[in-house]
Amino acid sequence: MKEFTHIDEDGAVRMVDVTDKAATDRRAVAEGRIVMNRDTFERITDTRVKKGNVLETARIAGVMAAKRTSEVIPMCHPLFITGARVDFYPEPENHAFRIEAEVRVKGETGVEMEALHAVSVAALTIYDMCKAYDKGMTIEGIRLMAKSGGKSGVYQREGA
Amino acid sequence: MKEFTHIDEDGAVRMVDVTDKAATDRRAVAEGRIVMNRDTFERITDTRVKKGNVLETARIAGVMAAKRTSEVIPMCHPLFITGARVDFYPEPENHAFRIEAEVRVKGETGVEMEALHAVSVAALTIYDMCKAYDKGMTIEGIRLMAKSGGKSGVYQREGA
Amino acid sequence: MKEFTHIDEDGAVRMVDVTDKAATDRRAVAEGRIVMNRDTFERITDTRVKKGNVLETARIAGVMAAKRTSEVIPMCHPLFITGARVDFYPEPENHAFRIEAEVRVKGETGVEMEALHAVSVAALTIYDMCKAYDKGMTIEGIRLMAKSGGKSGVYQREGA
Amino acid sequence: MKEFTHIDEDGAVRMVDVTDKAATDRRAVAEGRIVMNRDTFERITDTRVKKGNVLETARIAGVMAAKRTSEVIPMCHPLFITGARVDFYPEPENHAFRIEAEVRVKGETGVEMEALHAVSVAALTIYDMCKAYDKGMTIEGIRLMAKSGGKSGVYQREGA
Amino acid sequence: MKEFTHIDEDGAVRMVDVTDKAATDRRAVAEGRIVMNRDTFERITDTRVKKGNVLETARIAGVMAAKRTSEVIPMCHPLFITGARVDFYPEPENHAFRIEAEVRVKGETGVEMEALHAVSVAALTIYDMCKAYDKGMTIEGIRLMAKSGGKSGVYQREGA
Amino acid sequence: MKEFTHIDEDGAVRMVDVTDKAATDRRAVAEGRIVMNRDTFERITDTRVKKGNVLETARIAGVMAAKRTSEVIPMCHPLFITGARVDFYPEPENHAFRIEAEVRVKGETGVEMEALHAVSVAALTIYDMCKAYDKGMTIEGIRLMAKSGGKSGVYQREGA
Repeated sequence: MKEFTHIDEDGAVRMVDVTDKAATDRRAVAEGRIVMNRDTFERITDTRVKKGNVLETARIAGVMAAKRTSEVIPMCHPLFITGARVDFYPEPENHAFRIEAEVRVKGETGVEMEALHAVSVAALTIYDMCKAYDKGMTIEGIRLMAKSGGKSGVYQREGA
Repeated sequence: MKEFTHIDEDGAVRMVDVTDKAATDRRAVAEGRIVMNRDTFERITDTRVKKGNVLETARIAGVMAAKRTSEVIPMCHPLFITGARVDFYPEPENHAFRIEAEVRVKGETGVEMEALHAVSVAALTIYDMCKAYDKGMTIEGIRLMAKSGGKSGVYQREGA
Repeated sequence: MKEFTHIDEDGAVRMVDVTDKAATDRRAVAEGRIVMNRDTFERITDTRVKKGNVLETARIAGVMAAKRTSEVIPMCHPLFITGARVDFYPEPENHAFRIEAEVRVKGETGVEMEALHAVSVAALTIYDMCKAYDKGMTIEGIRLMAKSGGKSGVYQREGA
Repeated sequence: MKEFTHIDEDGAVRMVDVTDKAATDRRAVAEGRIVMNRDTFERITDTRVKKGNVLETARIAGVMAAKRTSEVIPMCHPLFITGARVDFYPEPENHAFRIEAEVRVKGETGVEMEALHAVSVAALTIYDMCKAYDKGMTIEGIRLMAKSGGKSGVYQREGA
Repeated sequence: MKEFTHIDEDGAVRMVDVTDKAATDRRAVAEGRIVMNRDTFERITDTRVKKGNVLETARIAGVMAAKRTSEVIPMCHPLFITGARVDFYPEPENHAFRIEAEVRVKGETGVEMEALHAVSVAALTIYDMCKAYDKGMTIEGIRLMAKSGGKSGVYQREGA
Repeated sequence: MKEFTHIDEDGAVRMVDVTDKAATDRRAVAEGRIVMNRDTFERITDTRVKKGNVLETARIAGVMAAKRTSEVIPMCHPLFITGARVDFYPEPENHAFRIEAEVRVKGETGVEMEALHAVSVAALTIYDMCKAYDKGMTIEGIRLMAKSGGKSGVYQREGA
């Protein structure tokens, strides 16, 4: 039966040994949403049109976070990511922004944590910059959408 | 009309000047959930009873993340947090763990970002440690529950 | 005769002991310039009008760097900065941007290093984002413009 | 009976809440030794007389590490240290250097971890710079020598 | 005559140039001990059986430290470590825990500093979590036990 | 027409995708100057002869900064640098030190940002250590001198 890979047979946490895995091109896409009240949504949207500051700051924060994922997630391997992007898709009907991050690497392990971390920090940055206006914002549905490269092959979320 | 506090009148992003604010005792509580399949939930729960590794690692990651929030969130002020805890509440009916973080500080600004960041990193750590088993896990409902201290007074999420 | 404050009487480097200094409101302003060819200058300026990306990224990088100054400069004291801004002033006649950073703190030591570090990182970020276009860009005149707070009183650069 | 202060009554790790403690002047002194073969000892000593590089690099690494202790030690509170020094005392009879670090702060918690961390990183830096010559070097006796400030009062190691 | 590899012919500190070295599989094992009074030893041991918190926190801190070694040790090369584990062996006769760390990498330089750093931070974390109970704990015998990979071949400590 | 490589066609900032670039040996050399009053220059020079502290600290700070460039510059790729040196050349006629940094890597992207960052932090460290003596010091002419490796080939600054 399959076991948690970060816990050894005596139950101790460890960083999985990937020394013998091949370095291959890997890619992961993750998404999440931040939901807010209408007024805050419109302010960000208007700002985006005019100045882009809230979303641009969140985008930069997300990319920078992707690079530092292994410092924050205890058993995550350090990686040289070779590419990262964070994009925002406004959803006016529910006053939300969908956040999507894609990360690429040539390495021994996947980059799903980097993509999920980028989404998470981009969402928190939007919260931080708008919290004086709407403390009730909620971050929803942070999840892996797709993954390729490595022995486990291609993963595509069902229905996505 | 109230403006985004992190954007100045010319639209430039800035770190809000809090030099003239009083240092007071501040506290924030945030929560989130990570939802998984039944099998993964049971494995973590069993592990918690026996060894506690997945949740214990996530707890430590959350506390450490709270301390480094201002490095990650671009316009967030550096703070000496004076206390932090991260707790997990299993929700067997939906195969989820509710994650709650509380952070305290004596300072010029609130600690809601620190509490939200701790929840977010604890959830990502659970994802990382169980992803070999369930890539479909989703992080839901990261939000501020309560906040006290400072000029804006007490915030309590409605219905919470 | 006055001695270097970061070197003790035996010649060893040390972090100056400021335990007995009073925490006062302190402020520092620094500036620098990045000079480039005309074409690159116009591209950034046009971009600023339309999207603001190069300068906005540099601004965010500068503010984030101000917060981490004590990690980078060996004998610099850690500080909670209470405010930071980075601004850009185009100088079309010499295809340059003047970069100005202001940092504030309530603390035992000044924030001139934080302001100088913010200017320096903002300039390097502009270089990074435009280097595919103009490798010859030069960073000039990084210097302290003004400083207030603390026992040494107000400093104002002559002619500034 | 006294309990571990970093573990709550349910056994969960937490960052101790020091919000209600007074900020007082605190000081800690720690020491350790790095023992090596005679030849390596003489090379460092000669170098110290002439250029000071190995010990000077170790001194700087120790001071910088003191500032970042709370990033490395999971439940350690962030602190603004107000002073730090690292010194080396050659012990020719056993081919060793005694390393002593002193750290000061005005804060709610002590700085013993900062002083111990500074000693530890200074010793590791000496190892790193001399390992091509002597892989057998050993770090011994890292311990707290003295501590003052705070409710628990003055601590002085017996026999020290 | 062999020279310190981190100091050039003029005596200046430098990061050794390893660009021309081959990337090979490398492994290092280091150990150390933390010695305490009997009561503290028993508390940790009992805790380990029941909850594992002190040692589990130290284990996680050690693995995380291994990843960040090059930030802390000035002339140490950055590396993607591909595996890391930290284990504890109680020694009831002298109220101590032996700490062992193993680190692996595919790279141009060895990982002895990463293994030594992991041991050192694991020991400091035990100190931090138990210091309210026993300030006199001492960290002893941090040393390299074995090393393989790279041109210098296999190292095995004599008598180990 | 050539575009900024860090901005996509919709104007969003991104980390350039270098997954498909070959890893080659790359090298960059950058320089800068810090200009001060005669008295400060002579103090540093005398110190250099006797103890080397100011310049030695700046050298170490520059090398350490080179390693952390991708944390500071938002769209800069993480890299394992394989070698770094920082050197100082006194210019008595204008009371200045020329600072030169060379960085090497085997990787998909160049190391010009690492070399420029090393120069910049070395200069700021000199400022920090001498600022009690001369607040008017100015950092001038931070620029890339030479670059090799990668598809864009060799770059040599004209007149250099």
